[in-house]
Amino acid sequence: MPYRRLRLGMVGGGQGAFIGAVHRIAARLDDRFELVAGALSSDPERARPSAAEVGIARSYADWQQMAREEAARDDGIDAVAIVTPNYLHAPVATAFLEAGIHVVCDKPLAISLAEGEALAKLAREKNKLFALTHTYSGYPLARHARELIEAGELGQIRVVQVEYAQDWLAEPIETGGLNKQAGWRTDPALAGPAGCLGDIGTHAYHLAAFVTGMTPVALSAELHTFVPGRRIDDHVQAMLRYANGARGMLWASQVASGAENALRLRVYGTKASLAFDQENPNELWFTPLGGTAERLTRGRVSGASAAHATRVPPGHPEGYLEAFAQLYKDAALQIEALDEGRALPAESLLLTTVEDGVAGLRFIDAVLASNAADGQWREIEK
Amino acid sequence: MPYRRLRLGMVGGGQGAFIGAVHRIAARLDDRFELVAGALSSDPERARPSAAEVGIARSYADWQQMAREEAARDDGIDAVAIVTPNYLHAPVATAFLEAGIHVVCDKPLAISLAEGEALAKLAREKNKLFALTHTYSGYPLARHARELIEAGELGQIRVVQVEYAQDWLAEPIETGGLNKQAGWRTDPALAGPAGCLGDIGTHAYHLAAFVTGMTPVALSAELHTFVPGRRIDDHVQAMLRYANGARGMLWASQVASGAENALRLRVYGTKASLAFDQENPNELWFTPLGGTAERLTRGRVSGASAAHATRVPPGHPEGYLEAFAQLYKDAALQIEALDEGRALPAESLLLTTVEDGVAGLRFIDAVLASNAADGQWREIEK
Amino acid sequence: MPYRRLRLGMVGGGQGAFIGAVHRIAARLDDRFELVAGALSSDPERARPSAAEVGIARSYADWQQMAREEAARDDGIDAVAIVTPNYLHAPVATAFLEAGIHVVCDKPLAISLAEGEALAKLAREKNKLFALTHTYSGYPLARHARELIEAGELGQIRVVQVEYAQDWLAEPIETGGLNKQAGWRTDPALAGPAGCLGDIGTHAYHLAAFVTGMTPVALSAELHTFVPGRRIDDHVQAMLRYANGARGMLWASQVASGAENALRLRVYGTKASLAFDQENPNELWFTPLGGTAERLTRGRVSGASAAHATRVPPGHPEGYLEAFAQLYKDAALQIEALDEGRALPAESLLLTTVEDGVAGLRFIDAVLASNAADGQWREIEK
Amino acid sequence: MPYRRLRLGMVGGGQGAFIGAVHRIAARLDDRFELVAGALSSDPERARPSAAEVGIARSYADWQQMAREEAARDDGIDAVAIVTPNYLHAPVATAFLEAGIHVVCDKPLAISLAEGEALAKLAREKNKLFALTHTYSGYPLARHARELIEAGELGQIRVVQVEYAQDWLAEPIETGGLNKQAGWRTDPALAGPAGCLGDIGTHAYHLAAFVTGMTPVALSAELHTFVPGRRIDDHVQAMLRYANGARGMLWASQVASGAENALRLRVYGTKASLAFDQENPNELWFTPLGGTAERLTRGRVSGASAAHATRVPPGHPEGYLEAFAQLYKDAALQIEALDEGRALPAESLLLTTVEDGVAGLRFIDAVLASNAADGQWREIEK
Repeated sequence: MPYRRLRLGMVGGGQGAFIGAVHRIAARLDDRFELVAGALSSDPERARPSAAEVGIARSYADWQQMAREEAARDDGIDAVAIVTPNYLHAPVATAFLEAGIHVVCDKPLAISLAEGEALAKLAREKNKLFALTHTYSGYPLARHARELIEAGELGQIRVVQVEYAQDWLAEPIETGGLNKQAGWRTDPALAGPAGCLGDIGTHAYHLAAFVTGMTPVALSAELHTFVPGRRIDDHVQAMLRYANGARGMLWASQVASGAENALRLRVYGTKASLAFDQENPNELWFTPLGGTAERLTRGRVSGASAAHATRVPPGHPEGYLEAFAQLYKDAALQIEALDEGRALPAESLLLTTVEDGVAGLRFIDAVLASNAADGQWREIEK
Repeated sequence: MPYRRLRLGMVGGGQGAFIGAVHRIAARLDDRFELVAGALSSDPERARPSAAEVGIARSYADWQQMAREEAARDDGIDAVAIVTPNYLHAPVATAFLEAGIHVVCDKPLAISLAEGEALAKLAREKNKLFALTHTYSGYPLARHARELIEAGELGQIRVVQVEYAQDWLAEPIETGGLNKQAGWRTDPALAGPAGCLGDIGTHAYHLAAFVTGMTPVALSAELHTFVPGRRIDDHVQAMLRYANGARGMLWASQVASGAENALRLRVYGTKASLAFDQENPNELWFTPLGGTAERLTRGRVSGASAAHATRVPPGHPEGYLEAFAQLYKDAALQIEALDEGRALPAESLLLTTVEDGVAGLRFIDAVLASNAADGQWREIEK
Repeated sequence: MPYRRLRLGMVGGGQGAFIGAVHRIAARLDDRFELVAGALSSDPERARPSAAEVGIARSYADWQQMAREEAARDDGIDAVAIVTPNYLHAPVATAFLEAGIHVVCDKPLAISLAEGEALAKLAREKNKLFALTHTYSGYPLARHARELIEAGELGQIRVVQVEYAQDWLAEPIETGGLNKQAGWRTDPALAGPAGCLGDIGTHAYHLAAFVTGMTPVALSAELHTFVPGRRIDDHVQAMLRYANGARGMLWASQVASGAENALRLRVYGTKASLAFDQENPNELWFTPLGGTAERLTRGRVSGASAAHATRVPPGHPEGYLEAFAQLYKDAALQIEALDEGRALPAESLLLTTVEDGVAGLRFIDAVLASNAADGQWREIEK
Repeated sequence: MPYRRLRLGMVGGGQGAFIGAVHRIAARLDDRFELVAGALSSDPERARPSAAEVGIARSYADWQQMAREEAARDDGIDAVAIVTPNYLHAPVATAFLEAGIHVVCDKPLAISLAEGEALAKLAREKNKLFALTHTYSGYPLARHARELIEAGELGQIRVVQVEYAQDWLAEPIETGGLNKQAGWRTDPALAGPAGCLGDIGTHAYHLAAFVTGMTPVALSAELHTFVPGRRIDDHVQAMLRYANGARGMLWASQVASGAENALRLRVYGTKASLAFDQENPNELWFTPLGGTAERLTRGRVSGASAAHATRVPPGHPEGYLEAFAQLYKDAALQIEALDEGRALPAESLLLTTVEDGVAGLRFIDAVLASNAADGQWREIEK
């Protein structure tokens, strides 16, 4: 089979951005994409130097123009990576889907459930890839955890404990305009109505759902804003109920002093439990009821899903960029299949879908509703 | 000063019991108590051999008789350790207080708030010690954590996360009568209306309050019973609100497969955070906002409260029995002061009081009420 | 069986000492000994107040007198704990053995191999207990490690890595006379010719031998003194060869900045490996060849030797004092058997013997000889 | 500045190889290299499909031809990555250096000191880059450790403990021809006279030297072959002496059951100690004398060298591939400077040099000599 690199475009991710650079490395790491076009900034003064700085050949200041022109070229992009602030996810994705271009979009999917559902519908109609970069599901051991649960190794799930703690917004660093990241992420006009909830709460929610294969049916939640003057939540806590009777708790905070990027999941079943911490992603703890813990390691676990998602032998740690790259690797597999009219390859099916993104928006809606009703239990729409 | 060992009696703790043996070691470890009398079982056939087996000179089958007779002896006991099932705590404690004998009582204080308040009132009237063995507050580093927070090292507290997970009740081991521990702890007639909530939830609640110096003003909670046929909760989850705006979560479960005795507390303030895990009690993690974690160790931290509560140098691990012994050491200091009409020694004041026990019962009541109201927020009585 | 506490005496361990207090707690913890006599100091001005301070009834200033008089009493001591500086171990032990009194002696056994061999001979002749307190072999999981190896779970042993690092002597704190501990331990006249080597090197050597069931046949070693002016080694490193072809390394240092009491053992066999760290004694790591690590925990491992050596359930950490107490518990079992002319109980046989102490002295001799010969390999006498 | 990717060639790394794929990802990760030519196999039947499989445009079956032809092209490669078995490092590197092409070479540098010294001389004469991929020095926190020591944070170094344990060669997997990796690495004709010593012992030696800034002046060492029939060592242990009086130990084993890739370094100075474990490369432990440990994390430490070597924020773990990529990033910086006649950029100077490779060969020679002399101390040539 002749080796083919897919042509990738990028919207957003110019100078001062964080996640754009991450997407670029991730797309490149497994050598399945070549970044050839970009609208890295809506500011024409910044778009071109941003593109030049990272070696992108075709630079646009206008993503709508980019969608049109790339679609018209013989060597136009196969896929676009959307790394803008949240409020642009839906319009940008819509434009590229309409132009027949596959989409890899940062999370959360959109800033409203209606937007998200429309995107899902459009992606289905256009039969294009819509991948959402819930990075943490790209870790080999997160995938292995899912495989263990699917295989019944935990028995029936009883308890889900998931949390995501950071401290970078513990002080009002969004004021003054110096921190571009903090600026847009705490501005409801750009980030949507959910702050910490949308930014990292959805990651926690997704990881729990991804690993357990279950989404809760109802929740009781409370949002809080600790930092005076902040216009959006920086803390969320919730209790969860699952259809099978399982119970759970979810906590996400961006004011947790000392926490770096502490996304942790624990799942307890009738037979055993699992614990995964994305800050130590090369290990997964498995403990049987009444027994002692086994520290499963990436590379030493047997299992197809972990094997598909890793590159180096045990003891050679992989990290966040590799997990991110895995999403791009799976996206490449799916794009090729879609372009050739084949079924999606089985090994690629753990890639986050637009429907997962919609589920995240339903979670956000339920949290907002429960919070508005002083913590009353609210059903999560299916 | 001539060396004096206090004379201790014990009610409960006969053959097949767990916590009685722990109290005996704890009372002995620092050599401040001598166990001389006991009503180890209400069954006369078991009381005497149980006492003989552990070297107790004066054995009673009836604790009421024991209270009367010991009070009447010149060499009668100074204090009694109550290690019965919960429903007997209040009547036994009442009898000994009435007899003018100091009390060290296992937790929870009683099976109803009314009982608990009556005990508190009686202890004050009689001017006798009423110590409650919330063991985990005896750890040097739990005390050091409290000292750090009191000194403002964490800034203003924002988030409290406390949990206590075990797995020993994940299956219906209370049936069949073979497991005496499981039997009474899952029988509402003996344990009171709170199962997991009373048994370990109160420990979690107490530790959080002990370390932070704050009790929540309201909570939203849910109890659950996972094991079919069980007559009492084996799982509790709650969200907490504090007067200063802090938020918190509390989780306790006795069906968490793989968990041994996983009581963990994390406290996040505006300046730093703390984490303590009773399974690794010789370390305490302190992490400043934006900084990296320091692993404080018992023996290497400076601070009067930790120093008072430890016996061996750094690197020589202390454990659960030493923490428990600390409560007895503090109790001895207070008994001597009370008997001599002195003020309680400053270094002994971290000993759990009957009022702490009442606070625990108020927590239980609030959880039961919130749970009955499908998780509505309920104020915790002051 | 009527409950009987053995009567214990103590030589050494007066005010300012460390290990005396540890022995007293350890002897008391399991309630098999009552401390009734002592020669806590050779200074008559300090002996009596030291004894009074810890509640010892019969105080002597002269241990020879104590041996004679206690032997003559009907209620004289059953055993003596020797907690003096090293140079007194042999003469004191000799006196008590000659008086027909059992001996529990702190390590190292003596300050010369000749002394040690004489003690071993005397103990055999007198048919009295001679227990050496190599504390770390009292940990349940150290004993479980030994049991696993004995059962062949590791296959044939190939590699032994043992180390013991402390930092308390990193600076010349022995000067000035303020630190009594540092003073005698760095004075060859009181500690013998081996400093760090004798104080903690022998612990490391013993633990490795205890767990593996093998002692090396030869070693190449180097002593070093880092602190200027110190009269004794504060650092030792050695390579080891075993009869079965296994290789090993031993490192002990008292100048390892930041180290508290870091005694760690790793053993690698053809089938699996083990790792034990006495600072985290409630866990033992077992990793099969090509597999992932299991974190065995005290209380959850099945095995007779660990069960015999523990008091509380899993998740209730035990520590150094409990390990030390285990030696006293085993000593009590053996003393009773010896006094009654019974065989030593099987469950007590892991107690360190005088022969183990002699092996430690042979190790010291071999290290001193190899070091004197610039690291030439030296056989370790059998 | 116009963005420029350097053109890279590769010798070795065809199908079935391990390290070739790692070099390819590493070279690509930071987007400074484009792989355009290769002699991936000396077998013409395998060279072309191997190249096609990884998207290399120009495939050669003969690396000598490749050196000549690439040197002659206008768009010929700027640098070559040498990922062959050890015995080819020197001839291949020589050919490319002679052709005026920069070299990035896997370790060890060569199979004899003479070869290595000749390479070093040639690289100097040709004024070309000769980078050796001692991967572990690419970790941000390994570099930060070096920076801390250079800044005097540890005081004077007293003790160096370094070890590298694996278990993949614990059984004779080299027999039968199925494991290509094991095959050449245990064949003295292909790997050189040092097995485990050359393969991972040199990594351990280099990391210790890199971090401490010191190489030992003498060593006493012992090689061992545990696996029957193996023609080369699979285990090495050594004691080290440094010019400043420091002492050290080095242990490397490929038969350590359960070990994955356990390269660990601990350095103790008069003021503090450091510990680094490449399996957990996002943390570095710093412990002051008499103090408690600080867990420094990648991204949260301040320091120019760590900042230069990292890509993502704290809590987003980086791993082995990122460390490897760092060497390529530094190589790109140096190649550009050399090509433009500029001084090597300061931030690139931690890249492993050919002189470091020569030092590794001197270490190998000293170990072989000491081992041959039954462990006599041997000076390490400067």
